[in-house]
Amino acid sequence: MLLRKLIPSRYQRASVPHVALTKAEKWRFGLTVFGGKILGLVAVLFLMKVLPNMLVGKAYAGDTFTAHETNIMNSINTVWTLVAAFLVFGMQAGFVMLEAGFARTRETVNVLMECILDTCLCGVLFWAIGYAFMFSHGNGFIGTHWFFLMGAPDTYEATGIPLLAHWIFQFAFADTCSTITSGAMIGRTSFRGDILYSIGVTGFIYPIIGHWAWGPDGFLALMGSAGNFLPSLGQGFRDFAGSTVVHTIGGVVSLAGAMVLGPRIGRVFARDDKKNGGLPPAHNLPLAAVGGFLLWFGWYGFNPGSSLSAMDAQGIGRIAANTTLAACTGGFGAMLAALWWGPTKGKFDLAFSINGMLAGLVAITCPCYWVSPLGAILLGFVAGFIVFAGVYLFEWFRIDDPVGAVSVHGLAGIWGTISLGFFASGQYGATGPTGADNSAPVAGLFYGGGTAVLKAQLIGNLTIVVATFAVAYTMMWVIRLLPHPWNLRVEAHGETGPGGLDAFEHGASAYNDPEAGNGVPGSVGVKDGELVLELS
Amino acid sequence: MLLRKLIPSRYQRASVPHVALTKAEKWRFGLTVFGGKILGLVAVLFLMKVLPNMLVGKAYAGDTFTAHETNIMNSINTVWTLVAAFLVFGMQAGFVMLEAGFARTRETVNVLMECILDTCLCGVLFWAIGYAFMFSHGNGFIGTHWFFLMGAPDTYEATGIPLLAHWIFQFAFADTCSTITSGAMIGRTSFRGDILYSIGVTGFIYPIIGHWAWGPDGFLALMGSAGNFLPSLGQGFRDFAGSTVVHTIGGVVSLAGAMVLGPRIGRVFARDDKKNGGLPPAHNLPLAAVGGFLLWFGWYGFNPGSSLSAMDAQGIGRIAANTTLAACTGGFGAMLAALWWGPTKGKFDLAFSINGMLAGLVAITCPCYWVSPLGAILLGFVAGFIVFAGVYLFEWFRIDDPVGAVSVHGLAGIWGTISLGFFASGQYGATGPTGADNSAPVAGLFYGGGTAVLKAQLIGNLTIVVATFAVAYTMMWVIRLLPHPWNLRVEAHGETGPGGLDAFEHGASAYNDPEAGNGVPGSVGVKDGELVLELS
Amino acid sequence: MLLRKLIPSRYQRASVPHVALTKAEKWRFGLTVFGGKILGLVAVLFLMKVLPNMLVGKAYAGDTFTAHETNIMNSINTVWTLVAAFLVFGMQAGFVMLEAGFARTRETVNVLMECILDTCLCGVLFWAIGYAFMFSHGNGFIGTHWFFLMGAPDTYEATGIPLLAHWIFQFAFADTCSTITSGAMIGRTSFRGDILYSIGVTGFIYPIIGHWAWGPDGFLALMGSAGNFLPSLGQGFRDFAGSTVVHTIGGVVSLAGAMVLGPRIGRVFARDDKKNGGLPPAHNLPLAAVGGFLLWFGWYGFNPGSSLSAMDAQGIGRIAANTTLAACTGGFGAMLAALWWGPTKGKFDLAFSINGMLAGLVAITCPCYWVSPLGAILLGFVAGFIVFAGVYLFEWFRIDDPVGAVSVHGLAGIWGTISLGFFASGQYGATGPTGADNSAPVAGLFYGGGTAVLKAQLIGNLTIVVATFAVAYTMMWVIRLLPHPWNLRVEAHGETGPGGLDAFEHGASAYNDPEAGNGVPGSVGVKDGELVLELS
Repeated sequence: MLLRKLIPSRYQRASVPHVALTKAEKWRFGLTVFGGKILGLVAVLFLMKVLPNMLVGKAYAGDTFTAHETNIMNSINTVWTLVAAFLVFGMQAGFVMLEAGFARTRETVNVLMECILDTCLCGVLFWAIGYAFMFSHGNGFIGTHWFFLMGAPDTYEATGIPLLAHWIFQFAFADTCSTITSGAMIGRTSFRGDILYSIGVTGFIYPIIGHWAWGPDGFLALMGSAGNFLPSLGQGFRDFAGSTVVHTIGGVVSLAGAMVLGPRIGRVFARDDKKNGGLPPAHNLPLAAVGGFLLWFGWYGFNPGSSLSAMDAQGIGRIAANTTLAACTGGFGAMLAALWWGPTKGKFDLAFSINGMLAGLVAITCPCYWVSPLGAILLGFVAGFIVFAGVYLFEWFRIDDPVGAVSVHGLAGIWGTISLGFFASGQYGATGPTGADNSAPVAGLFYGGGTAVLKAQLIGNLTIVVATFAVAYTMMWVIRLLPHPWNLRVEAHGETGPGGLDAFEHGASAYNDPEAGNGVPGSVGVKDGELVLELS
Repeated sequence: MLLRKLIPSRYQRASVPHVALTKAEKWRFGLTVFGGKILGLVAVLFLMKVLPNMLVGKAYAGDTFTAHETNIMNSINTVWTLVAAFLVFGMQAGFVMLEAGFARTRETVNVLMECILDTCLCGVLFWAIGYAFMFSHGNGFIGTHWFFLMGAPDTYEATGIPLLAHWIFQFAFADTCSTITSGAMIGRTSFRGDILYSIGVTGFIYPIIGHWAWGPDGFLALMGSAGNFLPSLGQGFRDFAGSTVVHTIGGVVSLAGAMVLGPRIGRVFARDDKKNGGLPPAHNLPLAAVGGFLLWFGWYGFNPGSSLSAMDAQGIGRIAANTTLAACTGGFGAMLAALWWGPTKGKFDLAFSINGMLAGLVAITCPCYWVSPLGAILLGFVAGFIVFAGVYLFEWFRIDDPVGAVSVHGLAGIWGTISLGFFASGQYGATGPTGADNSAPVAGLFYGGGTAVLKAQLIGNLTIVVATFAVAYTMMWVIRLLPHPWNLRVEAHGETGPGGLDAFEHGASAYNDPEAGNGVPGSVGVKDGELVLELS
Repeated sequence: MLLRKLIPSRYQRASVPHVALTKAEKWRFGLTVFGGKILGLVAVLFLMKVLPNMLVGKAYAGDTFTAHETNIMNSINTVWTLVAAFLVFGMQAGFVMLEAGFARTRETVNVLMECILDTCLCGVLFWAIGYAFMFSHGNGFIGTHWFFLMGAPDTYEATGIPLLAHWIFQFAFADTCSTITSGAMIGRTSFRGDILYSIGVTGFIYPIIGHWAWGPDGFLALMGSAGNFLPSLGQGFRDFAGSTVVHTIGGVVSLAGAMVLGPRIGRVFARDDKKNGGLPPAHNLPLAAVGGFLLWFGWYGFNPGSSLSAMDAQGIGRIAANTTLAACTGGFGAMLAALWWGPTKGKFDLAFSINGMLAGLVAITCPCYWVSPLGAILLGFVAGFIVFAGVYLFEWFRIDDPVGAVSVHGLAGIWGTISLGFFASGQYGATGPTGADNSAPVAGLFYGGGTAVLKAQLIGNLTIVVATFAVAYTMMWVIRLLPHPWNLRVEAHGETGPGGLDAFEHGASAYNDPEAGNGVPGSVGVKDGELVLELS
């Protein structure tokens, strides 16, 4: 009991029926259930001989489940996890819409193509090495089994859900991290450079650093327990759905990329030209806004699904409500900040509101299980202001982040991780495949828990920020040294030439209306090198 | 039994295991189950003494469930409710696409921003007061507990699902109502005016009037039973998923707003100019059409999810099929109406077809549980014609409804509610957390049930229409008297000035292509105040 | 046991509790469970007399389930099937985006409208006759019961799920097939011609030919078993989720339509003009790319949902993972092919990458249950190259397929169906409502299974390809002979006139910006017949 209290984990690892049962035990269970049902004296007498003291060892362990019950619970949890995985994958549609919408027209095809490539790469890499590095047993720093999923068991650890269901859920997470990365690098990254760094992020950086926090023996996961990292701390690092693991890593890699790349050619920063400087306007705001809503929609897979359990009904209901409220107040916070201090002071800014909602979602991702609705409201509201300040900060540092990815995912991810140390409500402990275990609830500073959780969160997040930045910056810097076309940055004429990056890298443009001269009233086009406007 | 027959309800309130069990009973159940499993003679003898006649009182009550079974069923129902809630939230993406697509370019950013603001407002208000007004106990007119969700139980009433899961499902409904409201007010509402009326709708009008029909003690819900409103009627008001509560309220508020606002400047009505009058064309039909499909997709959360129970498998299957069929025939109906009598007579009109599908969906929302597939087909078909007629009607009355919200949600909602009185098939009663209870089936006029259900539906819907219109019109009228910028209607120069409402209220335009002169062939833009067309 | 081995089926038809239990048995079960719970001596003694040897017959049958367990499992499976059905329906949003995005502006409204009409038609037809032809009992060629769903049982066959839940899942499949069909016929089909052939496809071709493979007594489903078609083969035709039934049928009908129609006016093929020939560029690539992602998202309903069972948790997890991996490598394959040999050689082509992902998804649709992740990776990769080659092939044959539907759905569907004969891993047999039955695993050529499965797949697919092409070509040819406006092909002036097909058939254009002159900076429009550009 004491031990369990010390081991921070997203799901409890004790008394999980499916894994705990050997085949022999299952058979005995089944027989017992049957016995319990026929209840005839013959059966009772028969069983009395066949199964003497069979369950004595478990008699006082609280709950035991029949094989049927276990199968049913595993199926419910699998449905939950798979539906959540599908929703998380659906976020890709949201991401491409958001990123393409915020981009300039000339780099839109490139954004779309990168997102498709990253997804395809991620699937293959996460099958070959990523999942192995991240979720297999090994040491505190890296998993060392299950490459190409070979030798992996049928179900993942103590969750009771099929390993392949866990794989696709985690693939969708890895893909999210990978897509976030491309955000701040839009518009000047060469496509072959994108392939190289994507391999680095999806195949190595995300899964290996992720192992520290989410691996079965990750050193940050086990931190604070006897015999592990910082045993005196008494608290492990907690990240329920990935404010740090997915969003901070993605945001920090994106920052490293943007720094190594430098800004897009012709980009004028606000401090250099008060009148005309600043981020170019979104080329398609409806696309971006719909993308924001689809991301929110997909987040309902991201956070509630991270329980990997629907038997913890109270837990998943709470996560869903908290996720909603933080998104709402995040949107509010950024809207108010932009209203009071933004470039369109006195007006309600759409782009900031979208990013504010996302910042609220990023922030609640870590603490969603352990805070109350009020906590979610407050920490989401703060995230909205953070994303506003972040966009100004990076603009001031002359870092060109076309979609605000570093602020939304990086900064709000850091804040969300730390916020658990303040807002954990002291009521909730760990989720698990048969229900919640609240015997060791997590309490933050504002709820009488002292600074222990806060310290653990700071240490965990800081470790990951520093490690990610160091590795990612080095990787980006190396790719920046390669000869074209493998250099990280596209040739200048590829960026500024006719048709922009889209024409140079993909031989296409996002929108094509070859209709002019064909009779569409009002359409404008080019025909034989001349402007054509159809009037009839 | 008689009593249950008289109490109309979306879910039965009897024999719900989770709630019915006290802690002591649960413990006893657990022990009994465990006892059933060890089945050793010692245990049997022990239990024989400890639990004499423990369950005698329930022996003939029909079905009893073990604590494990209850937990499992609650988890299935929670998964169902949450997934449905996510789908309903996903409708927001559909709504912004539909409304923005149908709008003119110059008011597109405003549509997007209103939808975001409404959602953020709704989350906070529904947490603070909305859910309390609507779903807590109080009196027939208003709920008086659970403000800020304080003091609320873990599970909602007899549903067995976590209160926070119920909250997020109902939040998504409230958000839908709020978004509908903005439809007929597009293009001339000031943003601060929008904030004010949204607070009124989401915080007060929707939850308080909704309480009448869906609250645990709402007077329309209890109507027809002894000691309540109109006891002689013998039927309560039924609205399974909200044709009245969500759609009629949303549509009627929208109508009140459009009437108080007046039309957009420059809007010419069809009766005033046969040649050029009529609704301005949709600025982006692909956006609107995709939005229509996403709304249909999300409706599968709206209607089937309103069972709050997956244990009623037949019920949710039937609802899903009925929802599909009504949408299909609604689309057909409006398509045919427009083909025969529409502005593009002889052609197949896309905008009417989209709105027809939505009208079918709105109409089936109330009766989805109680009608047969044939009933769904017929009532959806009628809804398609109603939405066509409604658009003409409001155009004739010179009411400017840019997206047809009043016809789609208001009129089809009224029709759908009443249609139950005709089409209820006399087979289905009430849903519930452990399955359906068809002991008191609902029968409409066409199925031998007489006019009782029809009367109840007419009384319930009419009560809500009148009350909503009176309150909403008053509210809009008051906001219309406020000084700018809080006045409901934006200043004239904000509507007609450069960049339209989007520039005035949000300092942005929906589409920006600053690329001209940068090499995108065929792109047209403005550079240094001159027309630039890139030819190369 | 032997028989079951011989009957290929998507789900096992034995030992399904819900159907197997008579009312009397259920009552006995319920009583027994209750008995097992009260466990008091009185009850024990009572039961000893009332239920002597009640369950002896089932004692050694392996697994028996209580009525509660059966209800719960049916509910889980129903939730799974319904959520999957919703996702499959959501693919419609993806399809309209993909098809409209790939089309030219002037035919965009037509694409949207066809998709809406097809969906509405499909709902009504599948209710009236389609479901009856396809899924009711009859003979090997056609189902002959359940027209208008009359006389249909509450649950579908041995699945334990409500018939109406099965109906909506299968409706969504039929709708997919119908939408695929329109792909290669974009831009020159008359709308009334579309209505006619859609009735043929949705009401007759798809359900009747589909019956052969998926009907309870379809001759391809029963092929290889004693007394049925080709008994010596020893293997039936397997198509888990429809590479043949949905995609090959859709693709082949589309090909027949494109051949009968001929190309769009003005379409220059690559072989006729090396410089300017080839497919016109997509008018809106962001729309197409987002559509591709939404289709992938919806495919998670298509494939995993086809188990109709969540109790087979391993199965649905495996399907979801396989679906993901094939999509990833399909995208890769087409991307590489286009990089090496495509029209934009040396560049990364977005349109081919999107179609490659889809080809991977189409290919894995048949074998998703029976192959390993490695198999999925390989067969998806091949599909990517196939779609690339197919687009070239049909271009060379001067067949105008604006979105590549024939290659994506037709060719990749054929490949996917056959690939099972190579890649079936010899581990997995049949899914079922209570779990998997792997007692008769399916093994392909590469996994030591010989050529039996390969032969069965070839025979099944070829039969359906030939039959579909013959019927569809005849149907299209007949409609092509009808007088206008019912002729399959629109009048020439409808295609080339002002506003194109959209104006001619629907009186609308996809994008309308009547803002010019109203102050939107940079907007270009037509006012009083003159070009207007707003500069201020």
